[in-house]
Amino acid sequence: MRIRFYNARILTMENDSLIEGELWTSDTSIEYIGASIPSDKDFDRQIDCQGNILMPGLKDAHTHTAMTFSRSLADEYCLDDWLHKAIFPREAKLNAEHVYWFTKLGLAEYLAGGITSCFDMYFEKEASARAAVETGFRFVFCGAVNDFGGLEHLEEDYNRFNSYDPLVAFKMGFHAEYTTCEDNLKKISELVHKYEAPCFAHISETKAEVEGCKGRYGVTPAVLFDRLGLYDYGGGGFHCVWFTDEDRELYARKGLWAVFNACSNLKLASGITPVYKFIDNNINIAIGTDGAGSNNSLSMFREMYLDTVLSNVETVNAASVDPFTVLKAGTSGGANLMGLDGCDTLKVGNKADIVMIDMNKPSMKPENNPVRNIIYSADNSCVKLTMVNGRILYENGQFTTIDIDETYRMCNKLVEELI
Amino acid sequence: MRIRFYNARILTMENDSLIEGELWTSDTSIEYIGASIPSDKDFDRQIDCQGNILMPGLKDAHTHTAMTFSRSLADEYCLDDWLHKAIFPREAKLNAEHVYWFTKLGLAEYLAGGITSCFDMYFEKEASARAAVETGFRFVFCGAVNDFGGLEHLEEDYNRFNSYDPLVAFKMGFHAEYTTCEDNLKKISELVHKYEAPCFAHISETKAEVEGCKGRYGVTPAVLFDRLGLYDYGGGGFHCVWFTDEDRELYARKGLWAVFNACSNLKLASGITPVYKFIDNNINIAIGTDGAGSNNSLSMFREMYLDTVLSNVETVNAASVDPFTVLKAGTSGGANLMGLDGCDTLKVGNKADIVMIDMNKPSMKPENNPVRNIIYSADNSCVKLTMVNGRILYENGQFTTIDIDETYRMCNKLVEELI
Repeated sequence: MRIRFYNARILTMENDSLIEGELWTSDTSIEYIGASIPSDKDFDRQIDCQGNILMPGLKDAHTHTAMTFSRSLADEYCLDDWLHKAIFPREAKLNAEHVYWFTKLGLAEYLAGGITSCFDMYFEKEASARAAVETGFRFVFCGAVNDFGGLEHLEEDYNRFNSYDPLVAFKMGFHAEYTTCEDNLKKISELVHKYEAPCFAHISETKAEVEGCKGRYGVTPAVLFDRLGLYDYGGGGFHCVWFTDEDRELYARKGLWAVFNACSNLKLASGITPVYKFIDNNINIAIGTDGAGSNNSLSMFREMYLDTVLSNVETVNAASVDPFTVLKAGTSGGANLMGLDGCDTLKVGNKADIVMIDMNKPSMKPENNPVRNIIYSADNSCVKLTMVNGRILYENGQFTTIDIDETYRMCNKLVEELI
Repeated sequence: MRIRFYNARILTMENDSLIEGELWTSDTSIEYIGASIPSDKDFDRQIDCQGNILMPGLKDAHTHTAMTFSRSLADEYCLDDWLHKAIFPREAKLNAEHVYWFTKLGLAEYLAGGITSCFDMYFEKEASARAAVETGFRFVFCGAVNDFGGLEHLEEDYNRFNSYDPLVAFKMGFHAEYTTCEDNLKKISELVHKYEAPCFAHISETKAEVEGCKGRYGVTPAVLFDRLGLYDYGGGGFHCVWFTDEDRELYARKGLWAVFNACSNLKLASGITPVYKFIDNNINIAIGTDGAGSNNSLSMFREMYLDTVLSNVETVNAASVDPFTVLKAGTSGGANLMGLDGCDTLKVGNKADIVMIDMNKPSMKPENNPVRNIIYSADNSCVKLTMVNGRILYENGQFTTIDIDETYRMCNKLVEELI
């Protein structure tokens, strides 16, 4: 399959300039980027981009995809009550069929929002992997071990999903310090060392979590995880709202990834992550939506907007965060965090994980700065086409690999079983 | 013109329940809401809503529509520098043709975002009024007097635009305390009393503004305006970020309107309005986008989301603001603030200012709570149809009264003259 995109403006994300011309894909990869040139190649399809922007797909670097079941279900709780009163009781009823369909729904939302891969922490992984591969979506699992389960099959999952399908991978991970005892953390660390694998977890999401950890161990979660060797091969954490300067210094020194989840942190009253401090400290950063129960959408546009502007209040500085740095975090950052080779930028030989931004929308005009328009003004209505691994999965509002009506019907039906 | 919407769910905004059935419009008004019943009426058009939600159009209660010219133009400044370095020099070059086309662009963005009327503070009003009437959009001017101009034709504008067209109205208003000297404020107050008119202005947007006012007058802007009689016939203010408890008590006692502009306040580093305090004090509230230069989109969905969740951080309470109260502010509140009779809710005899929310989007499923989905998860991609005064102005991505390609072309061209 060879596709030619012409009349395009290409934002490679290697820098913030736009290349006017063409992009060709061949099978799963990018074959050409540059000026319009004659070609004797046989294209299976030629797409007139009408001046729209092609850029690397957005990467959702922290999510619980199948939690679409919990959208608008319990909007009144802070994190602790939300987990224990609303989520855990329903998750106890979740089976593979639920996870399969609610993952499909989440994948549809990703594609409609220009997202081409996600870093997913959940259970019933076989069901999610099946939904992802059927859809053609690039899906990276993060281990979800806690004291209630997961450790017994962490190693098996690691090996199984890292050789499952080219679109699927698995990273070592656990839920959080407050749900995983020291003995279990040590067992996870043994696997981290056995496989020389990076390791990820929720971290410093709430003030109470950090205080609890200090009470138990005398140190913050980041310092604890480092002491236990969990970061010896890299990795990182989700949320990072209540990081100390020492935590940030540790993350910078070890090249760990901090993932921001602005909407979820606002909605659950967890706090505001000082994004500017992470950038000032040259920490590797990426962006995620968290699950639909605590966001409640899976929009990377809303996340990127908030990561750009929220720091302004604390700093009283409208330029506290550079918007292009945030766009890099939302595209290349997530790809590098997930270890997705060739998915970070658009260049010849890289994977064809591409989103076309519809610049012919009122919110994208005038074009004083088209790239800034994407960060400050775009939403899902600006996504014209989403391609993963060389396949067009979403175009002009239509899904090519998901039966969306059946997905809606099944999700509305299955959610009744969880009430 | 008589239109029948069937297979609809109707959110009247009189309460948060959904009525399953039909809504008929006749000419500019709503003729019927209720169950599906046989009718011998001749409908000009019958629209199958496929279960989508009909609700009152969103009301943008504070904006500078033609400032679309400044989108992504100077994103690095706080309010004071932004005005003086980026905006005022360009506004000095703006003529009626600029305002006409950049207003059209803004109107297109409103319609694509389900907005059916706006409260606009800008100049070259004749050009904006023409754009609005040509488009069929409901457009209410707010006086924009400051020490640089506007006072000399405030009374004339008031009379002219209140009898210009059924879609156009004009309210007394001025820019802000820090741009309008006491002598001019007193002259505005004379007109307020002559016409027994409510009066509006930017107020307490930044901490520096409040401190400046206290330095000049010994009181906050709200107290000053009240002392000068500017609030004797109602009115209110935009932003209200730095209100004191006394300001809120004044606004509650006099039934004044507080308008929230969350995105603009974040982007310009002005601060976060404690929305929950206004609700707890039973103050009349509405929501606006502010202009596209400081937002940078004109999305009421993003505003409503932020007004619902931003207070959670300060209060450490995920239920600090009720989402339905915010949806009321974004629909009925704005209508009542602007004095738009019959535009606040959907009921028989009221104006047909209606938006159809596309519930067949991934972000709107499952339907644990469809109304909350609108606040927490919707964006412009969920707007299927926008009707103003009984006319469909936007449907399935198409504008019926705006030549959108010509508008884009003119705006991209004209913005070059302002650089």
